[in-house]
Amino acid sequence: MVKKRFPVKTYIEGIVSGDRVLLSQAITLVESTLKTDLNLAHQVVQGILPYTGNSLRLGISGIPGAGKSTLIGNLGKVILKAGKKLAVLTVDPSSKISGGSILGDKTRMEAIVGDARVYIRPSPTGNTLGGVSAKTREILLLCEAAGFDVVIIETVGVGQSEVAVKEMVDAFLLLLITGAGDELQGIKKGIMEMADFFLINKADGKNAEKAVQTKSDLEKVLHYFPAPENGWQPTVLTCSSLSHEGLQEIWESILEYEQTVKNNGFFERNRSLQQISWLETHIRFLLEREFYSHPEMASALEKGKSEVLEGKDSAIGMARRLVDLFFSRIGF
Amino acid sequence: MVKKRFPVKTYIEGIVSGDRVLLSQAITLVESTLKTDLNLAHQVVQGILPYTGNSLRLGISGIPGAGKSTLIGNLGKVILKAGKKLAVLTVDPSSKISGGSILGDKTRMEAIVGDARVYIRPSPTGNTLGGVSAKTREILLLCEAAGFDVVIIETVGVGQSEVAVKEMVDAFLLLLITGAGDELQGIKKGIMEMADFFLINKADGKNAEKAVQTKSDLEKVLHYFPAPENGWQPTVLTCSSLSHEGLQEIWESILEYEQTVKNNGFFERNRSLQQISWLETHIRFLLEREFYSHPEMASALEKGKSEVLEGKDSAIGMARRLVDLFFSRIGF
Repeated sequence: MVKKRFPVKTYIEGIVSGDRVLLSQAITLVESTLKTDLNLAHQVVQGILPYTGNSLRLGISGIPGAGKSTLIGNLGKVILKAGKKLAVLTVDPSSKISGGSILGDKTRMEAIVGDARVYIRPSPTGNTLGGVSAKTREILLLCEAAGFDVVIIETVGVGQSEVAVKEMVDAFLLLLITGAGDELQGIKKGIMEMADFFLINKADGKNAEKAVQTKSDLEKVLHYFPAPENGWQPTVLTCSSLSHEGLQEIWESILEYEQTVKNNGFFERNRSLQQISWLETHIRFLLEREFYSHPEMASALEKGKSEVLEGKDSAIGMARRLVDLFFSRIGF
Repeated sequence: MVKKRFPVKTYIEGIVSGDRVLLSQAITLVESTLKTDLNLAHQVVQGILPYTGNSLRLGISGIPGAGKSTLIGNLGKVILKAGKKLAVLTVDPSSKISGGSILGDKTRMEAIVGDARVYIRPSPTGNTLGGVSAKTREILLLCEAAGFDVVIIETVGVGQSEVAVKEMVDAFLLLLITGAGDELQGIKKGIMEMADFFLINKADGKNAEKAVQTKSDLEKVLHYFPAPENGWQPTVLTCSSLSHEGLQEIWESILEYEQTVKNNGFFERNRSLQQISWLETHIRFLLEREFYSHPEMASALEKGKSEVLEGKDSAIGMARRLVDLFFSRIGF
């Protein structure tokens, strides 16, 4: 399914003027596996850079069943009401077929789907988180150039995808539901301490009281957490996609957060640090990709792992041998 | 200061028979920066591998001033009394001069220093945590081959060194002191969730009551933490290096932990996973070292960072350009 490609200028001008078709086609270039497409994508991204950086970037994570997509839909409505344009991206390293799960997500985001001020894009495909994250970062920039004021990045995957998203955003929201004190049992280690906001969802009906209790418990727990570098005390809020309570408060609290970190300088400093971190992370990803995709390394690595587990060589010694082999093969 | 080198066999036989002088000299080889020494070290480590794996590996971390070294000394005495031989290693990526701070540490470990059943070794020198960790892993293996039953790895540095140590040990102990509910304020993000044991130190005199309160608070907090994969509920204990209370209980609890994770299979599974993780981490370290130490990359990287921060190229695009440059220069 080879589609027509346009000159770089066409994409850049289209995106900056808010043309959604050209935005989507540029994103497809970023997601492509063809070298020619990627080169074109690189030039497009480079061209739109002067128009990037102006959105508020929000990351949202939460255990399955916490109601992430529905909340994004309802919170999105509040954001639109505030006069902002919204893009929603997902990071899901497990999704191998583009758009595979976004249909379900879109259904749950019915509050905003179809609105001309909203752009929803499923996770780029890929086997590795490093690859998927890099593409998502470029897509985030394209969306900013296209004039979206708020970009929400939802983590669909589990594991390390939250860390990758945290590296892309200005604020990180963790969605929870109440349930017998085990609210955080499904959350991966280290994630709790990344959150700027804890949103206790489904705080309605019989759950309303429990949600308030969870909020109070959680606030006590947060007291024991390391002091955040951004000068913002992680905030616990309750909300409901059913009663629509708490949504306006979340948005206002996010705006308060934005003001705080812009005033104390964290916002700008964090953006710069993230840029350098993106660079270094992607260098690492490309080096490792070169190593692991080298035709000879796959079998050498399998053999090496076995030898290490059998005690024939130490892990450190084997790593040296494998890396030496790699560099000798590529002509170093 | 070139010292005499022996044949591989001499080191191996010496270490396995418990010769401390040859153990120390083999460790010096591991720590060397000379290629010939490292090759010799590699052969020695490979030779002693059949004699490794039999120690209980403990990691200890804690905020500065928590009393880590003194506790290790006093806990070490309990370990010796139980008929075990003990090695103490440190991971400190910031220590550039070998033995720079171990003199102070040794003074604080007076309870065990000079005992023939104890081996204390300062952190290997190095600028990067990756390099220091790799050396510490090899030293750990050498100590095991020399017959030490318990190896304690203390993190002296801050930041990521705890994560590196967690990757090397069977159990991770976090040392705290009481203080107005801010006990964990000095602990780096994500560290709390790594601990199998929380030891509230200096629980003596006026602090005794506060320590019990902190213990109770912390137990409540832990209820909110993700369920540990090892099937062991993180345990909070109080102790004092002054009154020597709680030390025996800590050791017994560690033994109980060891039994638990050996019975449920986590111990062996974790050791295997750690081996593979050491291999992959060190491959990454060596690839990155090759990249960053290439004579042309230093200036290219500085220029690249500036261009990214000035918005002349995206981080992802710049990473691609730099890695392409690297591979073209080494002949790929």
